[in-house]
Amino acid sequence: MKMLLIHCDYFSYLTTQPTKIAEKIAEGCKSCAFKNALVIFVTAEKCDAKNPSRVVEKGVRETIKMAEQLGIKNLVLFPFVHLSEQVSDPETATKIMKEFHERLVSSGYQADKAPFGWEKIFSLTSKGHPLAESSRTIRP
Amino acid sequence: MKMLLIHCDYFSYLTTQPTKIAEKIAEGCKSCAFKNALVIFVTAEKCDAKNPSRVVEKGVRETIKMAEQLGIKNLVLFPFVHLSEQVSDPETATKIMKEFHERLVSSGYQADKAPFGWEKIFSLTSKGHPLAESSRTIRP
Repeated sequence: MKMLLIHCDYFSYLTTQPTKIAEKIAEGCKSCAFKNALVIFVTAEKCDAKNPSRVVEKGVRETIKMAEQLGIKNLVLFPFVHLSEQVSDPETATKIMKEFHERLVSSGYQADKAPFGWEKIFSLTSKGHPLAESSRTIRP
Repeated sequence: MKMLLIHCDYFSYLTTQPTKIAEKIAEGCKSCAFKNALVIFVTAEKCDAKNPSRVVEKGVRETIKMAEQLGIKNLVLFPFVHLSEQVSDPETATKIMKEFHERLVSSGYQADKAPFGWEKIFSLTSKGHPLAESSRTIRP
């Protein structure tokens, strides 16, 4: 799993259209907007299928470590297929994103998860400090 | 070289502070803002040092192909160290970014290059259409 973490002054998204692998969402579209949030762009990879829960566990640990360093409670998980050439099947990716989200919520974070498999408009303003952008490669 | 291409409705950046490897810029800070631009986040990689000009040539070709598909003339090259774990030395990266920029300008594009080695605040709003986000891995 690849993670790109960006500490944003502002972040928002809006679903525009579903792709073939879109997860079902409640209404016609979904949107969210946040001030002072850590946004985690996530690409699940082929090798993650070996042990998705272990991947989630490590991803959660890295996310919380960074959130604590930054002193923030707002997190956004954003599925993003462009961080790897070895992309997992959609089922594994959906499972990972769901578990990842649940674990962050149960850890006391205000965590949102953008819908998997949807085209989205997104808008962000990064913080521009030395820790504002970072990346992680997680292996099962 | 890794490239992450995002077709943006709006993109801006502002340099905040130099890192140890910062390139010299004319004033205390540099900023730019664009409407309807293709932003190319670029990470130069170790293997690019074998043939930086070949890497630039392929990168330019991919960029122009996408710009033509999107029908746009505004391009922003944005150095971004977080797309690879095999990052090149700063000299190679600076050389690649400079050549990449020059080639785009001489091909008739309105191309800006964000300064290498500076912390930056950036702000973007993506287009949200199916071609709005893509990535490339370029090998020498």
